[in-house]
Amino acid sequence: MSSAVSPLAPKTIVDLAPLDGVRLVSLACGLRYQGRDDLMLAELAPGTTVAGVFTRSLTASAPVLWCREALKGGSARFLVVNSGNSNAFTGRAGVASVKRTVDKAAAVVGCKPEEVFVASTGTIGVPLDDGKITAVLADGFKKLAGDQWNQLARAIMTTDTYPKTATRTVKIGGTTVRINGFCKGAGMIAPDMATMLAYVFTDAAIPAPVLQELLAAGTAKSFNCITVDSDTSTSDTLMLFATGKAGNVPVTSAKDPALRAFKKALDALLLDLALQVVKDGEGATKFVEIRVTGAASARAARTIGMSVANSPLVKTAVAGEDANWGRIVAAVGKSGEKADRDTLSIAIGGVQVAKDGQIAEGYDEAPVAAHMKGTDILFEVDIGVGHGKCTVWTCDLTHAYIDINGSYRT
Amino acid sequence: MSSAVSPLAPKTIVDLAPLDGVRLVSLACGLRYQGRDDLMLAELAPGTTVAGVFTRSLTASAPVLWCREALKGGSARFLVVNSGNSNAFTGRAGVASVKRTVDKAAAVVGCKPEEVFVASTGTIGVPLDDGKITAVLADGFKKLAGDQWNQLARAIMTTDTYPKTATRTVKIGGTTVRINGFCKGAGMIAPDMATMLAYVFTDAAIPAPVLQELLAAGTAKSFNCITVDSDTSTSDTLMLFATGKAGNVPVTSAKDPALRAFKKALDALLLDLALQVVKDGEGATKFVEIRVTGAASARAARTIGMSVANSPLVKTAVAGEDANWGRIVAAVGKSGEKADRDTLSIAIGGVQVAKDGQIAEGYDEAPVAAHMKGTDILFEVDIGVGHGKCTVWTCDLTHAYIDINGSYRT
Repeated sequence: MSSAVSPLAPKTIVDLAPLDGVRLVSLACGLRYQGRDDLMLAELAPGTTVAGVFTRSLTASAPVLWCREALKGGSARFLVVNSGNSNAFTGRAGVASVKRTVDKAAAVVGCKPEEVFVASTGTIGVPLDDGKITAVLADGFKKLAGDQWNQLARAIMTTDTYPKTATRTVKIGGTTVRINGFCKGAGMIAPDMATMLAYVFTDAAIPAPVLQELLAAGTAKSFNCITVDSDTSTSDTLMLFATGKAGNVPVTSAKDPALRAFKKALDALLLDLALQVVKDGEGATKFVEIRVTGAASARAARTIGMSVANSPLVKTAVAGEDANWGRIVAAVGKSGEKADRDTLSIAIGGVQVAKDGQIAEGYDEAPVAAHMKGTDILFEVDIGVGHGKCTVWTCDLTHAYIDINGSYRT
Repeated sequence: MSSAVSPLAPKTIVDLAPLDGVRLVSLACGLRYQGRDDLMLAELAPGTTVAGVFTRSLTASAPVLWCREALKGGSARFLVVNSGNSNAFTGRAGVASVKRTVDKAAAVVGCKPEEVFVASTGTIGVPLDDGKITAVLADGFKKLAGDQWNQLARAIMTTDTYPKTATRTVKIGGTTVRINGFCKGAGMIAPDMATMLAYVFTDAAIPAPVLQELLAAGTAKSFNCITVDSDTSTSDTLMLFATGKAGNVPVTSAKDPALRAFKKALDALLLDLALQVVKDGEGATKFVEIRVTGAASARAARTIGMSVANSPLVKTAVAGEDANWGRIVAAVGKSGEKADRDTLSIAIGGVQVAKDGQIAEGYDEAPVAAHMKGTDILFEVDIGVGHGKCTVWTCDLTHAYIDINGSYRT
C-alpha cells in the first residue's frame, strides 16, 4: 500500500451526513491488514430497493456471482464488504464461503439470505477465511450507527490513498431526498459495467426496476468511461440502495418528470466518485480528460477514447510532460474504429495542434508545453467522420505505478 | 535513445552473408540523428518478386499507403528506408514527399516508381524533409555493395539497443537457397499484420502471389504474436523479396511440396526476428512466453494471450519477480473470449499453480518464485473450453520503459 496521498486528491474529503434507513459500521476482523478496519457492514431499512451493475469479466469473483443472482429479488437488507481478499478464483470454496457469510448475516439481521449483498476486494486466488467475518457479524450488528459513513469509506480502501465520498441533495416532487455514495479503487481499474467497489444510498422511494435503469444510464457515462491501467477487475461492483424513508411521491418509470432532478444529481454523483478513482490512480501525477467528437457513433468514440487513455506511450508522454500528439494519432489508428487520417484534428489544453490530418498552421508548442506541466490535462480529438462523442478520463503512467505493482503481494 | 544493450540481447549478432541479387548501402543523410547512419538503400535484381504485410492502423503512414498500392505489381527493384522521421500524420505533404522520393529513386535505378518501396520510422507528425534523402540517392546508388547487411540493420535502429538479424539456408527441389532478414523495433510494438520494420530477402525464385501467401502464414505465428506495449504503430512493415538468382525449380503454389523446407525455414526466421524485437523491448529485463491452450478457437487463444501479455499488472508483476497468477486470471477474464472460471488452469515455469479454477493442491511457491527470478519466464494457461491454442511473447514493464518514453522527443 501507498502511504503518500495522491497529488490529485481533493483538497477536502466530503463528510457524509446520516441518511434515513441506513446504519453502518466498520470493523477490524484481521483478514489481511493489521491495525486498520477491513470490514464494513450496512443495514438497510425494510422496504429498501436495490440496483447493481457488476464486472463483465468472465472470471468474476464468487461475491459478484452471488450479487447478480440476489439482485433479481430487488430487495436489500444488509451489505457485507471486506478488503484484503477478493474471494476471486477460489472455486467452489469461494462459493461456499459466500453462502456461509450471507446465511449467518441473514440470521443476525432477521432477513432472507437473498437480501444480503456481499463484496470482497484484495488479493485474487487465496481462499477467504470467512470465519473471521462471520465471527464478528453479531457484535458488528449491535454497533451499527447512522454516522459512520466516512469511516466506512476508509475501511474498504486497498491501494487507495484517500477515501472517496460524494453527496447530493435534490427534490422528487416537492420532497427533499439525499444521495450518499462512496467507493474505492486505484489499480486494476478499467470498469466494464461498474468499478471496483462503489456504494450509493438514497432515502428516496424508487422501485427496483426504475433504480436499475437510472444506475445503468449513469454508469455508462461515469464509471464505464474511466481507466487507470486497462485491467478490468474480477470484482467490479456498483450498487445503489433506496430506503424510501424520504416518503416522496410514487414513481413508476425512469422517464417520470418527477425524477429529472434526481437523475441529474445521481449522474453527477456517479461521475464525481468515478473521477475520484482516476485521481487516485496508482502512481498518478496527472489527471487526463479525453474528449472525443466526430466519431462514427458514441460507442466508437468511447473505444477511441479508451484506446488513447490506455496507450502506455500516451500515458508515459503525459508523465514526462511531453506534448507528443503523434502518440495520440497512433492510438486512434489502432482502435479499430472508423477514422480518416485526413480529417483528424487534435487540440491539447485548448490549443489546436493538428488539423485535417497534419500539424496546424503556425502551431506554437510553447502554450501546449506549459499546459502539459499542469496537473489537469485536456486532449480534444475530433475524428471528423460522424457525430459520435464520448469523454473518458485517465491518469498518467509513472514510476510509482511500477513500484506499487511490482511488489503488491510481497 | 537507450545506450545500454538489453540484458536479453543475443550473445552474438548473426552475420548476414551476401545474397545473389541484392546490393545494399547505409548512409547518413542527417534527417534527425547526428553521427550515425539513418538511411538504407537496397537494390533488387531485375525479376525480383515481392510480398508484404503492413499495419492495419487506420492512421497508417504515407509510406505504408504507397507500399500497399505498389505491392499490387508484385515486382521490386529498390528499397529506401529512413529512420528519425516516420512521415506519419503528415497529410498531403507526406504523400507528396513519398512521391518525390520514389520518382527520384526510379530515375536513378532505371525502373518504374511502382518498383520502389519506401519506409520511414521515427517521430510522428513532423513533415519529412525528403530533399535530404533524394540528395544522396545517386551517390548512394554508386556505393551499393553485397556485404553491407549488418551495417543496414544498424541504420534503421531507433530505440533499439542491438541490430536484429537472422539467416537460414535450405533447399528447394535440390537447389540451395538462402534467406536473410533483419528488422528493427523496441517500442510501439503490437504488430497487427506486421511489425515496425522488417526486411527479408531470398535468392529463391518464387512468384509474388506464392511469396505473399507464405509471408502471411509466417507472420500470423510470429510478428502477429508479439507485443511490447500494446501500441500498434502507424508504420508497421514486413517485406519479403525473392531475387530468383538461385535458379531453383519453378513453383506455382504455396502448397508445392518443393517449398516445404523453405516454408519451415521462413517461419523459423520470422519467429527468430520477432523474438529479437521482444527481447529488445523498451526497458525489458524479462522475456515472457505465454502458451494458451484449450481456448474456443485459435483466434480466441491469441486474444487471451495478448490480453495477458498486454496487462500492465501482469507485466509489472513479472518485473517485480512476483508469481502473481491472480493477475493472469483477471487478464483472461477481461479478454472477452469464452472462459470458465472452473476449468481454468495455470502453470508457471512448468509448475502447476492453479487447476480447475482454484489453487493447485499442495502448491509450493518456492520453485515458481525461483523461476520468476530468471530472465526467461513461461506462463501456460489452459482455458479448458476447447482446442484452440496460440503462443504469444512479450517482455516486462519496468522503470526504464517510463524513462525512455517520458522523454523520447525532448
